[in-house]
Amino acid sequence: MDMAHLGHVEILTPKLEESLRFFIDVLGMTQSGVEGDSVYLRAWDDYERHSLKLTAAKQPGLGHMALRARSPQALQRRVDALGGTEFALGWTDGDLCHGPAFLCRDPDGHHIELYYETQWYEPPGPLRPALKNQAQRFPARGCNVRRLDHWNGLAVDIKANREFFENYLGLRLTEQIVLDSGIEAGMWMTCTNKTYDFAYARDATGTKGRLHHVTYALNSREEVLLAADIFLENGIKIETGPHKHAIQQTFFLYVYEPGGNRVEVVNAGARLILAPDWKPIRG
Amino acid sequence: MDMAHLGHVEILTPKLEESLRFFIDVLGMTQSGVEGDSVYLRAWDDYERHSLKLTAAKQPGLGHMALRARSPQALQRRVDALGGTEFALGWTDGDLCHGPAFLCRDPDGHHIELYYETQWYEPPGPLRPALKNQAQRFPARGCNVRRLDHWNGLAVDIKANREFFENYLGLRLTEQIVLDSGIEAGMWMTCTNKTYDFAYARDATGTKGRLHHVTYALNSREEVLLAADIFLENGIKIETGPHKHAIQQTFFLYVYEPGGNRVEVVNAGARLILAPDWKPIRG
Amino acid sequence: MDMAHLGHVEILTPKLEESLRFFIDVLGMTQSGVEGDSVYLRAWDDYERHSLKLTAAKQPGLGHMALRARSPQALQRRVDALGGTEFALGWTDGDLCHGPAFLCRDPDGHHIELYYETQWYEPPGPLRPALKNQAQRFPARGCNVRRLDHWNGLAVDIKANREFFENYLGLRLTEQIVLDSGIEAGMWMTCTNKTYDFAYARDATGTKGRLHHVTYALNSREEVLLAADIFLENGIKIETGPHKHAIQQTFFLYVYEPGGNRVEVVNAGARLILAPDWKPIRG
Amino acid sequence: MDMAHLGHVEILTPKLEESLRFFIDVLGMTQSGVEGDSVYLRAWDDYERHSLKLTAAKQPGLGHMALRARSPQALQRRVDALGGTEFALGWTDGDLCHGPAFLCRDPDGHHIELYYETQWYEPPGPLRPALKNQAQRFPARGCNVRRLDHWNGLAVDIKANREFFENYLGLRLTEQIVLDSGIEAGMWMTCTNKTYDFAYARDATGTKGRLHHVTYALNSREEVLLAADIFLENGIKIETGPHKHAIQQTFFLYVYEPGGNRVEVVNAGARLILAPDWKPIRG
Repeated sequence: MDMAHLGHVEILTPKLEESLRFFIDVLGMTQSGVEGDSVYLRAWDDYERHSLKLTAAKQPGLGHMALRARSPQALQRRVDALGGTEFALGWTDGDLCHGPAFLCRDPDGHHIELYYETQWYEPPGPLRPALKNQAQRFPARGCNVRRLDHWNGLAVDIKANREFFENYLGLRLTEQIVLDSGIEAGMWMTCTNKTYDFAYARDATGTKGRLHHVTYALNSREEVLLAADIFLENGIKIETGPHKHAIQQTFFLYVYEPGGNRVEVVNAGARLILAPDWKPIRG
Repeated sequence: MDMAHLGHVEILTPKLEESLRFFIDVLGMTQSGVEGDSVYLRAWDDYERHSLKLTAAKQPGLGHMALRARSPQALQRRVDALGGTEFALGWTDGDLCHGPAFLCRDPDGHHIELYYETQWYEPPGPLRPALKNQAQRFPARGCNVRRLDHWNGLAVDIKANREFFENYLGLRLTEQIVLDSGIEAGMWMTCTNKTYDFAYARDATGTKGRLHHVTYALNSREEVLLAADIFLENGIKIETGPHKHAIQQTFFLYVYEPGGNRVEVVNAGARLILAPDWKPIRG
Repeated sequence: MDMAHLGHVEILTPKLEESLRFFIDVLGMTQSGVEGDSVYLRAWDDYERHSLKLTAAKQPGLGHMALRARSPQALQRRVDALGGTEFALGWTDGDLCHGPAFLCRDPDGHHIELYYETQWYEPPGPLRPALKNQAQRFPARGCNVRRLDHWNGLAVDIKANREFFENYLGLRLTEQIVLDSGIEAGMWMTCTNKTYDFAYARDATGTKGRLHHVTYALNSREEVLLAADIFLENGIKIETGPHKHAIQQTFFLYVYEPGGNRVEVVNAGARLILAPDWKPIRG
Repeated sequence: MDMAHLGHVEILTPKLEESLRFFIDVLGMTQSGVEGDSVYLRAWDDYERHSLKLTAAKQPGLGHMALRARSPQALQRRVDALGGTEFALGWTDGDLCHGPAFLCRDPDGHHIELYYETQWYEPPGPLRPALKNQAQRFPARGCNVRRLDHWNGLAVDIKANREFFENYLGLRLTEQIVLDSGIEAGMWMTCTNKTYDFAYARDATGTKGRLHHVTYALNSREEVLLAADIFLENGIKIETGPHKHAIQQTFFLYVYEPGGNRVEVVNAGARLILAPDWKPIRG
């Protein structure tokens, strides 16, 4: 229980300006910082300064994902657990929007930042919300994505990655796909009452460290349906959906942002996993 | 059955620029013309060039309402019926967005244009929709009002006005309020399968020709709820709602636009009146 | 404009009892009559006594569809137009739930009843609604279908059928599919402000008089999504959806009832066709 | 972090049979046990055997509330903390649907069960869901309440109760009302990512141990609106709503069940509190 939640995801784009227009104008996100080749973005209900770091690169893909710890002590416990293993990459000074982070990698090579110190978002005047319990004004622009929900990666060896996240980071498996051969082909992991904070599917190509998609939550299924209309009107390619996944029952829609990354918008209804001893569902 | 539908409403505003910002930025409407002291506005699903004429004036209130006839012949039949009565005011050349209109007034003095020739909206490139069967691109801005739904006036003598609309314009009464004293206190009239195209409530002050509100339809009740959030964020005064009226079962929300006119957004769900012999509901 | 709306559809089922359970328990309809091999069913917002006649037969398919006229005079005008043509089949005494009907057939052989006299539904005590302007209590059972929306047939020669409905019954074409060869492959017809009251698609097999599906409207897209869950839970085969048709923008879901007929539930949002001179959309 | 979530609430009713009909037929709950004067009820997404214990009594009100611990060790830690204080009441053998519980009371006298051992619900055949990751078949009956969301009590001294839950049970305050005088007048406490698992408002009458309401979550705001219709049709008194609370932004509806207890149905949209260091909002 040392990790509190998925904090942010960094994705790479060969078309920074076009990707930025997609996330701001079509998804309805807000730019909250720029540094070097990276632009920091946030959804209106994200409490931290950013939940997406968009970095110019030759190819699309994942930069890193970041998990926020529950406390400095919780962070230190995870660093201690990782110390000296092949997964530990060491401390960084942090980033524009958060404090020092311990960088590690999972068995598939995805980079993971663990951090506790962060910046709570302070909206400038025109973005101040009417209600005190909300991070930022509702934008009323594009899809109005609410908050970072999860991200989805590919991994060559699901079992090895599952065990890494369970053993070193204390995450919980809520659902998985196990083939008749006994090989694990998919995993959904959480550190919250959300049914998953990220998921991995088996990479049949044997390529390591890949991103499948990054996902933002909307307030209702009706807004996911509206998002489909908005993507269509804006010439954004819809890959599939809106549909309901049987796994985790997420109502979802996949599109491609101009930089080539798959982006998902979802609504899970009121579904939460509250049981502390939830038995992973095997599909 | 000679009248096809409510075509547009003209409202007066002492704060033209601020009213315009409200209708465009907050409601999500599109400006489609300017002439003299008037700006023409439309919702994305209105097939005609405009559904709202916003005219600078010293006081807020109703300019006129306009009903489109089913055909030139249908229009002429109504003009013939009105000709020579106290209600007839005569032909006008029409307006920026529609052809010649016959102007009349109801017993309470509200001005009414009857017209057939109109301009179908032709969206400029950036506003062209993805689907052929839609008038304009979905704006993804503010409340995204869909189409003019109805307007609501006040009248001193409801019965006289009801009879005027039934006898001279061929409209149908779908619901009404009749006091125990037998005095009619409210009426809901239609010329479509919508449950009403306009409504009048009794003006207890004895003032004539007043506007109560003008109403735009949204796609769902969820969007009416989102609209409430958007109004709150934009400092727009919410008078009442979102609620469901027992009369006509409309899910509604009343706000005041900066010029002082009450504006309503609604969703009626799938409710239609299909019966050709619908018996008016008496409340 | 002589026809008011689609009144009811008769479908045939080789499994009357199982079909009945589907329409009552899963769709949430109410039984409102029985006569011979037929059971009469209604949705809670249908104002007439029934909108579906379910008749035991060896094979599934269409019995007939029925259009209600706007008045006795309107009915007579249509009978006069049809009289002496190959399409006229003559008067019947009517049915358990409506008065005398004139029976005809379209060029593809679908049977069509035209009638005016009908029975307004009078709910027994436990089914009386709380609000006066509603036909029956909201059932809160199964999918809670609201009202008959449309039906969909197949026809070998779409053009001949379109012309029949335009010329003999005065219906309007709102959208159509015309192949590059100029052959008409689909038509959507209306006599209301609904975008269609029925539709025909081209029957590539050359078979005449076939039913594609019968459709009930739900109150919102959210309820269509709930309906998908309810069908899944009840072991009802979902053929496709929930999706949005590009044509007519209907949000829909197709299932098969136990008797073998395809049934659709839909929501059109606030979409209506108000223009009296709507130009058919050609897809 | 020792408490996992609100497990169940026991409410007292002077009209057991009528209350039962309300919870089963109108709310859509399922009876999952009977013992003595108590009936055990559950919503379709509750993973434990019950979330509501309905007990016959002379007056309506709260029997007790129960919090499930994260582990046997977590439970023991809380028992150790409470041991020897005036709040500890001692161990019980548990109940029909869960194992041994440690009973305590808060400063206002509300009875609280702390337990870990529980019964996961095992649906009988007809209630088995289509999807493996769901506890029970979606009922498609009445309001279809999804899961116990929270309960709301009254307390004479809010500050004393807040400190009790923070210090002895490790719960977190997410929002509170503090009067200008500095007196605390309301508190919202959580042990999950839900914004609250229960709330207390100040009891101005000075009466101790009172219940304000018990609350079930629905899947969407649209279903809360449907619930309002269903309550109206069933003659259930609606006290207020559907509205949105400014505090916690919950979309809610209050009714009275026949036994005299206030019951709430809500939807919070996608709102969660993910920050481990959330600063309580002061209203």
